[in-house]
Amino acid sequence: MDTITYRCYDPREFKALTFHDAALRFRDGADTPRAYLERCLETIAAREPVVKAFVARNDAGARAAADASTARWKAGKPLSPIDGMPVAIKDLLETKDMPTDFGCAAYRGNMTRRDNAAVWALRQAGAVPFGKTATAELGGSHPPATTNPFDPARTPGGSSSGSAAAIGARMVPAALGTQVGGSVIRPAAFCGNVALKPTQGGINRGERQATSMSTTGVHAGCLEDMWQVAIEIVRRAGGDPGRPGLFGPATPPAAVKPGRLIVLETEGWKSVDAATRSAFELLMENLARAGVTLLRRKDHAWIEAFEKSIASAGNTANGITAWENRWYQAALVELYPDGVSERLKNTVRRAESMSPDDYRALLLDRAAAQQCHAAVGPLADAVITLSCPGPAPLWPGDVPGQPLAPRPTGDSVFNTPSSMLHAPAVTMPIMGVGGMPVGVQLMGQQHEDARLTALARWMMSTITPVVA
Amino acid sequence: MDTITYRCYDPREFKALTFHDAALRFRDGADTPRAYLERCLETIAAREPVVKAFVARNDAGARAAADASTARWKAGKPLSPIDGMPVAIKDLLETKDMPTDFGCAAYRGNMTRRDNAAVWALRQAGAVPFGKTATAELGGSHPPATTNPFDPARTPGGSSSGSAAAIGARMVPAALGTQVGGSVIRPAAFCGNVALKPTQGGINRGERQATSMSTTGVHAGCLEDMWQVAIEIVRRAGGDPGRPGLFGPATPPAAVKPGRLIVLETEGWKSVDAATRSAFELLMENLARAGVTLLRRKDHAWIEAFEKSIASAGNTANGITAWENRWYQAALVELYPDGVSERLKNTVRRAESMSPDDYRALLLDRAAAQQCHAAVGPLADAVITLSCPGPAPLWPGDVPGQPLAPRPTGDSVFNTPSSMLHAPAVTMPIMGVGGMPVGVQLMGQQHEDARLTALARWMMSTITPVVA
Repeated sequence: MDTITYRCYDPREFKALTFHDAALRFRDGADTPRAYLERCLETIAAREPVVKAFVARNDAGARAAADASTARWKAGKPLSPIDGMPVAIKDLLETKDMPTDFGCAAYRGNMTRRDNAAVWALRQAGAVPFGKTATAELGGSHPPATTNPFDPARTPGGSSSGSAAAIGARMVPAALGTQVGGSVIRPAAFCGNVALKPTQGGINRGERQATSMSTTGVHAGCLEDMWQVAIEIVRRAGGDPGRPGLFGPATPPAAVKPGRLIVLETEGWKSVDAATRSAFELLMENLARAGVTLLRRKDHAWIEAFEKSIASAGNTANGITAWENRWYQAALVELYPDGVSERLKNTVRRAESMSPDDYRALLLDRAAAQQCHAAVGPLADAVITLSCPGPAPLWPGDVPGQPLAPRPTGDSVFNTPSSMLHAPAVTMPIMGVGGMPVGVQLMGQQHEDARLTALARWMMSTITPVVA
Repeated sequence: MDTITYRCYDPREFKALTFHDAALRFRDGADTPRAYLERCLETIAAREPVVKAFVARNDAGARAAADASTARWKAGKPLSPIDGMPVAIKDLLETKDMPTDFGCAAYRGNMTRRDNAAVWALRQAGAVPFGKTATAELGGSHPPATTNPFDPARTPGGSSSGSAAAIGARMVPAALGTQVGGSVIRPAAFCGNVALKPTQGGINRGERQATSMSTTGVHAGCLEDMWQVAIEIVRRAGGDPGRPGLFGPATPPAAVKPGRLIVLETEGWKSVDAATRSAFELLMENLARAGVTLLRRKDHAWIEAFEKSIASAGNTANGITAWENRWYQAALVELYPDGVSERLKNTVRRAESMSPDDYRALLLDRAAAQQCHAAVGPLADAVITLSCPGPAPLWPGDVPGQPLAPRPTGDSVFNTPSSMLHAPAVTMPIMGVGGMPVGVQLMGQQHEDARLTALARWMMSTITPVVA
């Protein structure tokens, strides 16, 4: 087991937990899924008291599933390359064997006795969904107890707090998260994960089709596992109803070197701290030295237009989501006034002033931004930008009597663009700033998830990570 | 109360229960929402033993809500024009005060303690959601016990069986239904309702966002109530996430005479019985005499192309829906093998052979048909066709040991086109065949729900219904 070390994250040295390489030894019995699971449980026993990634676990069920997987590997008949992989499940997604609390007191102990589509598909593929990870309340901003695995005084990000922390703490090789604003990419970036926020509708959200920008994403320790988990789900459960689902190969796409990348600033650029900014610019220099042409807003009128189209992405995205959650959250507050946070009540109050026409106006803004994004597609292989404005912020908790902190799980300003554009994004743990991880993301055109993964593989294998 | 008369439905004489006219007398106290509700309950008491429209009711809650509405009307402060309207709710939609069984044994007594978006909006508008109506199992084809209010030996149609029967039996002025293939328009047509199957996403489906062709629709006794219920919901809960929602005026759109209508055959035309066919042609003659120009497939190459594009709508729509229900229904059968019907198990078996690429191919067929439909938009004000291939069929129940009847709730062949096209449809009770209702529908371009309603108002007020 690793020594626990805080605030000395170094992307050049940190080794996340991986599965695809371990599985190579399952066939001859040098290792087994059961032994792999036990190692995960040991790490959890050591780290969980501080990290608090999980809100529910089914260790007995997981052990039984791992034993069944062990037998399949020994018989030479695994159900898929992820047969036996322990996968943590964000507690917004239903599981037949564990409660689904949505991080919300009103739902404590909520046993729905159903599997979410992705969870069902993981079981079909032989994987071992074995614990529910803490989420900000209903996927919003009210944080759970989870701490950042690299500094317990800091947030792991949200709302997929537990999934990101579990990867960062090497508890599991993969975890499901969900993103509406920035709930996969941001926590993954704060916790040294790789993660895929797929094209809108790319991974079937199952019963959780709540809002027009929500997606199910995959957190992992490496790109190989990330891709394999995503594609195994989609081969079995498809994408969202009415959507074609994630396109791509049955095994991780090979590394592809980008010819050109658009360096996006987004409205978040002005809030980036100096150390993160210089680390990012160093990384861009490394890319340029490797022969990648970098384009910026000054280089092409369409890039400038694209930047402008997402200049208020936060307002647009937050307004759309507020309206879409309005009936549900208002009804919840009516039924369970003591079962929801003050943060949620404030959100409901803001949404109550909206009309259908306000919402329609925001949909049009979003559609226009999507057009501007599509326009820059031919200019480059992908967009590159920060996954977060800097290292995970300190989070000492709300102070009674004081106004609620507006962003206890960090700022999603670098994440709302891909959400609003329905575009895939892959974050890479390729920078360390002040001893904490800071992710860098690639964003592609809709349905280019596989290409992004290939570009990310090239970057992760070729470009020297930056430490600042 | 009406005398109960079977198989002598006459569209020229049948008077459905209406609310908008009754509400005119609520202000001066000549009538009250509570008295209106009691009349509904009397009719239910008389008819329900045979019709079996309801699976759950909350009469006490409804009476309290009606009393509160009575007080608002007396104070001159109704919450909306539908304040006090009793509305029956299809049992696929969640209600905080009644169980939601989905017509499925596995879910018996399922108290979700949540209101569906439309139910929540109805309560916000002062309406009285007061009973759950029987549905075919999970909105599929396995029928509930409900009988046709005009002949108990016949099906009321499905899957919104109870909602349609409740309107036909004059139990309520309005009811919510849902449609994926033909589950609103067909039962409404069999039971003498008007009904709106809105543009895809026009009415927020709330927690029930299961498939890409499912919609929440409104069954009613008249077009005024139908529109008012729909628009009051949408003003409060909007459309589906990511959709602009139902467009149209805050009160029922006034009658508009169509200049031209496209008479659509669809693949169902060949299965229409002779009496229904001649009744429909008589109705077309009435329209022509009133000065409406009728266009058919021989009159324009684009109409011919459109007919061809939906010539296998049933296969396309059923395949899409089978895939979209696949993970959920397969998981359900695994968990509750004794809690689902043999019909459902057969459906799951058929879906299991599909791959993501099969589904993608069907999505492309659907998109192509939608293009062909959009192309004929400028040619006419709307499309007109039958809502069902004839009167509701006899349904004696499954015979033990015999193969399951393939369509116990009737044939949706005239309904899959509007579902597949994401197009609005309004059915009108404007024909009687063999003493039973047979509906005729108008179908419009996406977002033309209000225009369709205006055209339907003109037809219902101007064209003599046909009896054959």
